[in-house]
Amino acid sequence: MNIALTVTNYVGIVAFAISGSMKAIRKGMDLLGVIVLGFTTALGGGIISDVMLGIYPPVNLTYLPYPLTAISAGLATFIFYRVFSNVGKPLMYADAVGLGAFSASGASLAYSISHNPLLVVLVGSITAVGGGVVRDLLANEVPVVLTREFYASAAILGSLVYFLLRFIGVNDASSALASMIITITLRFMALRLKWELPRRIINEDAVKA
Amino acid sequence: MNIALTVTNYVGIVAFAISGSMKAIRKGMDLLGVIVLGFTTALGGGIISDVMLGIYPPVNLTYLPYPLTAISAGLATFIFYRVFSNVGKPLMYADAVGLGAFSASGASLAYSISHNPLLVVLVGSITAVGGGVVRDLLANEVPVVLTREFYASAAILGSLVYFLLRFIGVNDASSALASMIITITLRFMALRLKWELPRRIINEDAVKA
Amino acid sequence: MNIALTVTNYVGIVAFAISGSMKAIRKGMDLLGVIVLGFTTALGGGIISDVMLGIYPPVNLTYLPYPLTAISAGLATFIFYRVFSNVGKPLMYADAVGLGAFSASGASLAYSISHNPLLVVLVGSITAVGGGVVRDLLANEVPVVLTREFYASAAILGSLVYFLLRFIGVNDASSALASMIITITLRFMALRLKWELPRRIINEDAVKA
Repeated sequence: MNIALTVTNYVGIVAFAISGSMKAIRKGMDLLGVIVLGFTTALGGGIISDVMLGIYPPVNLTYLPYPLTAISAGLATFIFYRVFSNVGKPLMYADAVGLGAFSASGASLAYSISHNPLLVVLVGSITAVGGGVVRDLLANEVPVVLTREFYASAAILGSLVYFLLRFIGVNDASSALASMIITITLRFMALRLKWELPRRIINEDAVKA
Repeated sequence: MNIALTVTNYVGIVAFAISGSMKAIRKGMDLLGVIVLGFTTALGGGIISDVMLGIYPPVNLTYLPYPLTAISAGLATFIFYRVFSNVGKPLMYADAVGLGAFSASGASLAYSISHNPLLVVLVGSITAVGGGVVRDLLANEVPVVLTREFYASAAILGSLVYFLLRFIGVNDASSALASMIITITLRFMALRLKWELPRRIINEDAVKA
Repeated sequence: MNIALTVTNYVGIVAFAISGSMKAIRKGMDLLGVIVLGFTTALGGGIISDVMLGIYPPVNLTYLPYPLTAISAGLATFIFYRVFSNVGKPLMYADAVGLGAFSASGASLAYSISHNPLLVVLVGSITAVGGGVVRDLLANEVPVVLTREFYASAAILGSLVYFLLRFIGVNDASSALASMIITITLRFMALRLKWELPRRIINEDAVKA
């Protein structure tokens, strides 16, 4: 993994862990819950991907710098909650950087195991957004990634770009870098321009099925 | 897999995907959420079973016809929601066909790996109902399969029939077909006769523990 | 596994299954839901650990005495709900015994695969509390382990003790026994003295993020 991906990967772990820990605090969880939610948000997507690809124990549980970074970020969020809640906007952009790094590294990992396009796109996307889905499930909420904003879609497109570049012969490092830049750019634009995916409006009273 | 199982399997993928996508629409999810919920409802059970049996990457992520069918059904539900919501009854019977096909193929897969009766019954049932459980979790609801109707029970009994037939020497194809017919028949009867499992009535005020 | 661990392990399966089944009954689930929730509470943590460590099919699905014990306990809870709901306190202590047995056996299993300290602590803890987390997710609640009491923390510390003892050369059986005693003692003290982890109080109106 080249230096750009390494740096952005750590940016992502920190940003994701903070988002998980802040949700835990808002939900009234205790210190353990805050750290667990930070941890799973930052590392859950990679763990799910490793399990699906048959890589065990999952790298996120054994390569110590990743979990230690996530746990430290969770602890810092617990202590400096007020500070972090005042920098929501920078955090959203840091989160976008993580989205790009995670989807590129997930797509790269999947491609190293199988050249199946769907697998590459799915594993790239799950690596990027799986942690956030687990965070929302543990917080007893509908995963936000399924309901609004252009977020997972950026990871899907970025992962697809990775596959296409490899398919036409570009090497891993360049494809991953390009994929990451695409995902981050799309997500930045989505934040700026408030992109939303279409929605099916139904005028039923019953919201619960 | 013989022709009957192949056809019913696709019926199941389509019916399950529609049920997931309709729930997503009713929950106000966006296009991505609708497709993801359709996808996980149709293919989630098989993915969980593959992970438990050590088959990776899971077949449902790599054998393209399955995911493409599920994604297409989700997209169709998004576009033709009104049409689909008027054919609730036929959809429930199509869903029952899928229940039978999925439990038979799950039981058959488990048996090919281990002759443990519990494993065969559990994997058959999880293949059949696991996707629906994930659907309900993502929609932030108690899984309907745990609360009412005779649904998972049909899959459990069908999977058990598969095991017993293999145990007395019947071959895979015939056992799977018989298992599927049993599950579908039980589910059809349950729909017709409104079967419910017993429930423990408690007169406590506290419903939440 | 020595005799002490075997006995406490069964105590844990029964206590965990009862806690899951009682929650299912309180949530109005039917007989199947009651048995499934008992089963997953008792055996879910071990299944998740096995999947993470690449042990498949998971032992809890194939070694019949474990699932049969869990299913029997669930069934007994369904029938004798009123009796069990009057012995809440003894059940909490039986649950603590299970917590100790499960975390010790999880830590021991992880250590047999990798000497990574984080992995040992995580797998020990997940084996102990993972089933309860799945129980709460299926019941559509925030996992109680993330919000209050000194519960997972006892399992984390007990798993850490296991690792440290192995690290200084103590054998598996003695380390597991000591780990279990530490976890149980901590949990008993937590129950007696009503220990709670610190919590970050925020005076925001928004509880939902």
